[in-house]
Amino acid sequence: MNGAEALIKTAIDCGIELCFANPGTTELPIVGALDRIAGIKGVLGLFEGVCTGAADGFGRMAERPAMTLLHLGPGLGNGIANLHNARRAHTPVVNIIGEHATWHRPVDPPLAMDIEGLAGPVSGWVRTTASTKELPGDIVEAVRAASSGCIATLIVPHDYQLGACTTQAPPFPGNEFDPLDAAEIEAAATLLRNKKKTALILGGKTLSSEGLAIAARIRGMMGCDLLAETFPARMERGSGLPIVEHIPYLPKYAQAMLADYDGVVLVGAKDPVTFFGYPGVPSRILRADQEETAIGTGGQDLVEALSTLADSLKGKGVGAPASSAQVKRPPIPEGALTSAAVCQTLAALQPEGAIIVDEGGATSVRYYLMSDVLPPHTILRITGGSIGYGMPCAVGAALACPDRTVINFQADGGALYTVQALWNEAREGLNITTLICSNRSYRTLVGELRRAGVEKPGKNAQALVSLTDPAIDWISVSRGFGVPAVSVTDVAALADALKRSLAEPGPSLIEMVLGS
Amino acid sequence: MNGAEALIKTAIDCGIELCFANPGTTELPIVGALDRIAGIKGVLGLFEGVCTGAADGFGRMAERPAMTLLHLGPGLGNGIANLHNARRAHTPVVNIIGEHATWHRPVDPPLAMDIEGLAGPVSGWVRTTASTKELPGDIVEAVRAASSGCIATLIVPHDYQLGACTTQAPPFPGNEFDPLDAAEIEAAATLLRNKKKTALILGGKTLSSEGLAIAARIRGMMGCDLLAETFPARMERGSGLPIVEHIPYLPKYAQAMLADYDGVVLVGAKDPVTFFGYPGVPSRILRADQEETAIGTGGQDLVEALSTLADSLKGKGVGAPASSAQVKRPPIPEGALTSAAVCQTLAALQPEGAIIVDEGGATSVRYYLMSDVLPPHTILRITGGSIGYGMPCAVGAALACPDRTVINFQADGGALYTVQALWNEAREGLNITTLICSNRSYRTLVGELRRAGVEKPGKNAQALVSLTDPAIDWISVSRGFGVPAVSVTDVAALADALKRSLAEPGPSLIEMVLGS
Repeated sequence: MNGAEALIKTAIDCGIELCFANPGTTELPIVGALDRIAGIKGVLGLFEGVCTGAADGFGRMAERPAMTLLHLGPGLGNGIANLHNARRAHTPVVNIIGEHATWHRPVDPPLAMDIEGLAGPVSGWVRTTASTKELPGDIVEAVRAASSGCIATLIVPHDYQLGACTTQAPPFPGNEFDPLDAAEIEAAATLLRNKKKTALILGGKTLSSEGLAIAARIRGMMGCDLLAETFPARMERGSGLPIVEHIPYLPKYAQAMLADYDGVVLVGAKDPVTFFGYPGVPSRILRADQEETAIGTGGQDLVEALSTLADSLKGKGVGAPASSAQVKRPPIPEGALTSAAVCQTLAALQPEGAIIVDEGGATSVRYYLMSDVLPPHTILRITGGSIGYGMPCAVGAALACPDRTVINFQADGGALYTVQALWNEAREGLNITTLICSNRSYRTLVGELRRAGVEKPGKNAQALVSLTDPAIDWISVSRGFGVPAVSVTDVAALADALKRSLAEPGPSLIEMVLGS
Repeated sequence: MNGAEALIKTAIDCGIELCFANPGTTELPIVGALDRIAGIKGVLGLFEGVCTGAADGFGRMAERPAMTLLHLGPGLGNGIANLHNARRAHTPVVNIIGEHATWHRPVDPPLAMDIEGLAGPVSGWVRTTASTKELPGDIVEAVRAASSGCIATLIVPHDYQLGACTTQAPPFPGNEFDPLDAAEIEAAATLLRNKKKTALILGGKTLSSEGLAIAARIRGMMGCDLLAETFPARMERGSGLPIVEHIPYLPKYAQAMLADYDGVVLVGAKDPVTFFGYPGVPSRILRADQEETAIGTGGQDLVEALSTLADSLKGKGVGAPASSAQVKRPPIPEGALTSAAVCQTLAALQPEGAIIVDEGGATSVRYYLMSDVLPPHTILRITGGSIGYGMPCAVGAALACPDRTVINFQADGGALYTVQALWNEAREGLNITTLICSNRSYRTLVGELRRAGVEKPGKNAQALVSLTDPAIDWISVSRGFGVPAVSVTDVAALADALKRSLAEPGPSLIEMVLGS
């Protein structure tokens, strides 16, 4: 068995089943090993940003890591942006990069780059394998590190992939949580008991069905509100689950939402801050006089921390836990294809159990005002703000959950970053409906320009925020990658197209030409 | 004047005229400044890899830097791969990255990343601006550093863009070369005089018309051969210029070419090495017993170094400088669309003064066997081996040379990395003909698999090197981005399509469906 085969065998033993790859010569022994040792399916991405984004989507839904296989520094570079989103989502990803043979590296061949330097900013764990015999142990370590919720990057020189490997891998320990911190729990309980108006701000695994049920129990006992971080990695939502409002993206709305709380408890969410620094607007949404405490910090099990907090409260039950028990779908609207109409149409038609991959930018905001009363579904959002996450994430989510419908609510600007993911939808026959919000501009940026005082952009600014001249012909682009597509300009046509897409297996794309 | 305006004004004073950008909120003051201070044209890329690749193409042809404007760490990440190619090409690029406001950075907002850490591996010069008043000086420094042939990355916090700036920029010194090294010249002259069979291995600016003429003079005096590095950033070629052979990509051919030289002089080229490390094959192409020396190293003027070497030789003239004085176009071939037929068709039809952007991978190799006797033209090649350089590079080259025809000889695998560049061709109406080598696989990688002993890839390997299931519909993809396209399956149709494309203004794409 060579090092590459040992790597693959060990990865299989650690539970890896998918490898999102765009390999090159320095990864060929691993490609060969994928053939000779059955257990991991290779999925080619036409661009590495598709590979890393798909690994993110898979990890969010499967709750275990997929593997990537990227070619040297440039291949990693192309994957950086979606690794950034995965890092912010605490998605487990085992990121494998081939490196030149150690004896070849000193001559600085054309593709040589400082791969560790490049990997550092997005990885929670980085290692370059030091010899063939270390490889099995390195992979176990990488999967263990990734499973704690980070990007684990293992760089594997070509000669170590080829070397004979007789080392036995140490057993995979699985994911291990740090012990709970009783003082944190006690501080949170004290805050909830003593402060008048309080909220739990939920993030990470607390937005699972289990976490939300516990949060609802605490709300029932203490009367606190339940809020969610602005861009959760994954959130269960819909009837039967407690209503949880997201903290808005725009500072003034976020400030308004949080202004009256005397104290908040963070559970898997970070202290709320503005997305960007706006002159005259504080970075923190909460004021210094608002008390804040956190439970489940570091490597603790968030759901267990929340559960322990609930047990410690022994509250009296100030009311039945509010939840959206009943499905109340809005009707399909009529008329022009506005952002609101698009959101409402989706809310009217999305099937139970849908996975909504939201990179809808300026268009999808209103969707959340309607979606808490829909049949249960899952929301994935853009955690790191790096656009181009939606299409690849949808691919990964669909591969993790082949029996569920994936709806990619997708801004056009972001879609164009990683449009190559459409090919994977076609190649794998994935049940993904892509709704392109075709406003033909970077609409969020137009809004930011306006907030910065630029009402009428000049020629240069206009050229830099507009997606016209020419407008993208989405039907052609989508078909070019093998995904059938239609373009709609009114709500009736959108509803028809969406119904048809949801009824048929395999991928399809609907360009929604938006008026406003 | 705010910092952003001072930045733009100074950049204009330093000769910057193009800004390839995909800005976000943290770059908006610079976007605004591009509007208010005329002199730099903003060119939007739908993806940052297009921006950096276009800056590379522009810099290679214009011989001065363009500016990029990228959004935070993820925007830079997306541009890394083509910056790597530009770094290896010694292309001058002024790479501007917005950063969060310094007062906002400590709260670690979602888009925050270690930008300097990310920039390091591809930059010859990196700085984060320390205050608004430093900005004009920083830009001068960045342009100066870039002009010496590197990526100069300047990271500019948002608050410093907004601050009032009264600082006067220091004058732009222009590019300054290091003094020539007389000992280097003397050593090279001694080698050429004393060794029996010698060669100049040319790279960088020595492959300009001026450099080649000097090299031919040396050949005329000393009888040495003229060779070129395998993947030059830019090379003038064709009738009237001396015939210079590239060192082949495959080690056995490279070794065969260089085996008999007693001594070589490197002029702007690195010591030849294999592209990858192959077991049993030495990294260096030359043996230890073959003498090697270099002139013009470090920051020297390569053409001046070569010229000084020529002057110092005072040789007796062993023969007239061999050059391809006459144009000998091959005829348009007949029959099936093989790699050889494609190369010959291009050689038969390319116009005088064409810029050939070659990312033709396995298909374009034979082109160089025919192209030294064509009318004068310029070759740009993939210097860093990071695929996806061709289409963006063509965009930059066409913007630098609007009066010349650009032909992008483009492998399909690489084309799919940065296909968004087609939109720039349409938007700017660029005279670019894209020849897609549609072999529907990563053919180079299939060859490398074969060399690694894998004749028949298994299911996983097949999936990872093939571009079928479905095949890309290039006509649709191209039209989707606004570029008219045709698909051809025989030589006659290719010749017709190529003639038509070259005769008409604006971009077009020809998919060449290759048999072998």
